[in-house]
Amino acid sequence: MNDGIAASSLDSALLHTLRAVLGGRLSTSDADRVQHGRDESWHPPRPPDAVARVQSTEEVQAVVRACAAFRTPVIAYGTGTSIEGHVGAVHGGVCVDVSGMSAVLAVRPEDLDATVQPGVTRKQLNAHLRDLGLFFAVDPGADASLGGMAATRASGTNAVRYGTMRETVVNLGVVLADGSFIRTGSRARKSSAGYDLTRLFVGSEGTLGVITEVTVRLFGIPEAVLGAICPFPSIGQAVATVIEAIQCGLPLARIELLDGNAIRAVNAHSGLANEVAPTLFLEFHGSDRGVEEQAEAFKAIAVGNSAGTMRWSRDHVERNRLWQARHDIHYAVWAQRAGGRVWSTDVCVPIGALAECLAETEADMADAPFFAALVGHVGDGNFHWGFVLDPENPAEVAEAERLTERMVLRAIRLGGTSTGEHGIGYGKRKYMAAEHGDAVGVMRTIKAALDPLGIMNPGKILPD
Amino acid sequence: MNDGIAASSLDSALLHTLRAVLGGRLSTSDADRVQHGRDESWHPPRPPDAVARVQSTEEVQAVVRACAAFRTPVIAYGTGTSIEGHVGAVHGGVCVDVSGMSAVLAVRPEDLDATVQPGVTRKQLNAHLRDLGLFFAVDPGADASLGGMAATRASGTNAVRYGTMRETVVNLGVVLADGSFIRTGSRARKSSAGYDLTRLFVGSEGTLGVITEVTVRLFGIPEAVLGAICPFPSIGQAVATVIEAIQCGLPLARIELLDGNAIRAVNAHSGLANEVAPTLFLEFHGSDRGVEEQAEAFKAIAVGNSAGTMRWSRDHVERNRLWQARHDIHYAVWAQRAGGRVWSTDVCVPIGALAECLAETEADMADAPFFAALVGHVGDGNFHWGFVLDPENPAEVAEAERLTERMVLRAIRLGGTSTGEHGIGYGKRKYMAAEHGDAVGVMRTIKAALDPLGIMNPGKILPD
Repeated sequence: MNDGIAASSLDSALLHTLRAVLGGRLSTSDADRVQHGRDESWHPPRPPDAVARVQSTEEVQAVVRACAAFRTPVIAYGTGTSIEGHVGAVHGGVCVDVSGMSAVLAVRPEDLDATVQPGVTRKQLNAHLRDLGLFFAVDPGADASLGGMAATRASGTNAVRYGTMRETVVNLGVVLADGSFIRTGSRARKSSAGYDLTRLFVGSEGTLGVITEVTVRLFGIPEAVLGAICPFPSIGQAVATVIEAIQCGLPLARIELLDGNAIRAVNAHSGLANEVAPTLFLEFHGSDRGVEEQAEAFKAIAVGNSAGTMRWSRDHVERNRLWQARHDIHYAVWAQRAGGRVWSTDVCVPIGALAECLAETEADMADAPFFAALVGHVGDGNFHWGFVLDPENPAEVAEAERLTERMVLRAIRLGGTSTGEHGIGYGKRKYMAAEHGDAVGVMRTIKAALDPLGIMNPGKILPD
Repeated sequence: MNDGIAASSLDSALLHTLRAVLGGRLSTSDADRVQHGRDESWHPPRPPDAVARVQSTEEVQAVVRACAAFRTPVIAYGTGTSIEGHVGAVHGGVCVDVSGMSAVLAVRPEDLDATVQPGVTRKQLNAHLRDLGLFFAVDPGADASLGGMAATRASGTNAVRYGTMRETVVNLGVVLADGSFIRTGSRARKSSAGYDLTRLFVGSEGTLGVITEVTVRLFGIPEAVLGAICPFPSIGQAVATVIEAIQCGLPLARIELLDGNAIRAVNAHSGLANEVAPTLFLEFHGSDRGVEEQAEAFKAIAVGNSAGTMRWSRDHVERNRLWQARHDIHYAVWAQRAGGRVWSTDVCVPIGALAECLAETEADMADAPFFAALVGHVGDGNFHWGFVLDPENPAEVAEAERLTERMVLRAIRLGGTSTGEHGIGYGKRKYMAAEHGDAVGVMRTIKAALDPLGIMNPGKILPD
C-alpha cells in the first residue's frame, strides 16, 4: 500500500547505521510513517522517512549523530497530540519516537519534584504519584507526554494557579544537534547561575534538541477541592466574572469558559445534560474553610453578573466526571461532524483585554460555515476556538485561515500572543513576525548557533 | 587625584562620538569611574574608562553602536547593589548608567502589570503603586533597580509565594550588541510562540544586551497580613519547621532564617532587642480567616520543633520595622567591623537537602576567623552567609574563598546551585563548570552568537 505517500528516501548508509543501533525498532513502513507524520490537527500528514523507536538517551544520541552526518532532519515524537503540525516531517527525515522511554526515574516527595523519561504521560505520572498525596499539575486535556509538553510549553486548566510547563519544569536533559547531552540546570527551585537554558528549551518544539529527561515540580493534593459549574446569559457576563475574580485576587485553581456550542458538544459526547449556555467550570483548592470562603466571594461576583443556577460539588467522582467531559472537548467537537478534522487554535491576551478580544472574536464566528466552539482557560486570558471542517474543502480551509488570522492579529494588537499554549509548529509561523518583530532575528541567531546544520525539526517555529 | 586608578584609555574618536551623543552626561572623572566600577561586594573596584549617564533607549543604542565600532566593552549599571562584581569593568570600557532612566511608563491595574524604565527601583515602583492597592513583589533587600534585578534574576523574601524575577518579568526591552532594539515578548501571561527570550535575558547580567524597559507582574495587596518572629534552640529545628511547613503546602508568603550572629548584628544596627537565637521571620498573606488558619497550622509545626516564644503581629508599622531590620542585614553585618567589607555569598538546594547543607556549612563556619552570619530565604532552599573581612588581608580572603568553595560544591553535590539569587558576576565564574558541565558550552555558543564581538559586559558569567 502507498496511498499517495512518497516512498521513504533515506540514504541507505544512514539506514544501515540506524538499523545497527535500533534493529527492529527502526521502521520505514508506510503505516508507521503516516501515523508519525500527523498530530491531532487538521494539518495533512507529513510522513518522516523512518521512525526510530528509541529506548534510551544513548540511542537518541546515536540517532542524532547519524542524522547529523547525513544532514538529515530529526523530529521528536511523543504522543502525537500536538495541534499545530509540530511532528510533521516537512523536510523528511527521521522521527524519534520517545514513547518507549516511559520510566519514572525518581520521585522525591521531600523535594516536591520528580524526574521522568520524556515518554511518560501526565496521567501515568499522576497514577504513580497518587499514593504519595502529590500531583503533577499541568493538564492540557490530552494525555500528552511530558517531553512533548515541555517542548510545546503546554499548560491547561490548572495554569492559573499552578503555572504552565514554563514554571513547572525544573530542568531538562537534552540531546543537542551534535549528539551531545546536557542537563539544563540543577534541581534548586531558583538559581542565578548563568543563562536559563531550561526555559530556552521549554517551548523550543524540538528545534534546538531532543528532550530525553524531564524534572518537574510536584504539588501536594489539596486538603479540600470545591468545584462549580456556573451558566451565564452571555459570554460577556461570564468573562466579566472571571476578570473581577482575578483582579480581586481570588485564588482560583481552575476557571474555564465554554460557550453554548461547546456545552452542546460536551453534552452529546459525554451524555450530560448541562444547560446550553456560556458556562464557567471552576475549582478552588485549599483548606476546608478556605475553599468555602473563596466560593462565597466568587458567588457574590457571579451573581452580580447575572449568573444562572450554580452547581457546587466537593464530590470527587462527580467533579471528575465533569472535568473529564471538559477535557474531552477536543474529541467532543470532533464528533460533531463525521469525517471532519478539528481546527483548534488559541490566543492569549492580557486579562484586561479579554472581554474585548472575546467579544470581537465571537462576532466573527457567528457566520462561520462550520461548527465552531469556544473553550477558554480564561483566568490566564487564554482561549481556544475549535472548528470542525473538511480539510479537502478549500473554501472551508480558507475561511478557517481568515478567522484565525483575524483572531491572532487582534490578540497581538491587544498586547497578546498568537498562541498561549498550542505552540507555533508550522501552522502559526506566518504570525511570528507580526508578534515578535526584530526579535525573530534573535531566535534565528540562536537556532543557527545551536543547530548549525538545521537538522532539528526544521520548518517549525521560525518563518522561512 | 588618581589613587592608583589607571587613567581612562578610551580611543579619542570614541570619546568624541560619545560626547556628541551625551554632552556633559559622559564622564571620565576618576571619582565617577571608581564609583561605577564597584558594587556592594568585597571585590576591589574595576573602574570603567568612562561613565555614560543615558536617558533613553535611543541613547543606549547610540552608545552600544559606538562601542561596537571600537570593540569597546559596555557595562550596564543600575544602583550598584550587586554583590559578585557584576559591574566591574574587568576589561575596561564604557559604563552605561541607566539610573537616570527612572520613569514608570505605564501601570495597568486591569492587567496587573506595569512597564518601567530600567532605573526605576523597587521602592520607587511600590510607592507609585500604593494608592492602587497593588504591589511589586520581588524584594531583594537592597533598593535595587528593576533593570538590575532582571539582569541578575534577583529574588528575595517574597519569592516563596510570589516568585523571583524569572516569574515576575513579563517582557523586556533590550538593546542588543549591534545596537538594535527588541522586545522579548508580549504582555500575555503565557505564550507558546517561539523561544522564551524573556527568560534568556533575565539573569544574563548584561552579557547579551542592555535592558532598557521592564514589564513586570503586579499583585493585589492582600486583605490581611500576619507576621511572626519565632526563635528556636538550634538552626536545625528552625529548618525542620520550614521543611515541614513547605512539604505540607502551607502558603507561606515569607519565611526567613537568621542565625544568632545575624540577630546580634540586626539588634545592634536597628536598636532592637530580639532574643539572640536562630530565628524565623515569617508572614502569611490572605484573607482574615485564611491567615489565622495558616498561623495555627504553623504554630503546631513550630511547637513540635521546640520553638521559643513567638511574637505575632498584624500591625503594619510594627511589621515594617522588623522587616526593615531584616532588609538592612547587609549593612548591619557590614557595621560589625569598621573598615571591613562584606563578603556575601549564597547557594540554593532542593528543600529536602536544606537541613544537611545548612548543618555542614554551619559546622564549617564555627571556626571562621571573621564575623560570619547566616540569613536564608529558606522556603526556597536558599541561604546566604555574610562575612566581614579585610579585603587587603590575603589570609582572610583565602579563608573566605575556602569556606565559599566548600559551601558551593556541597550545594552542587546535593542537587543545588552555586547561587540562588546573587548571580555569577566574576566572583563565581570558577564554579560554572562544576555546576553546569557541558551546558557551559551551550551558554558560550549563545553568547558568541548574540555578542560576536564580545563587548557586552565581558568577563562575567562564563569562565575564560
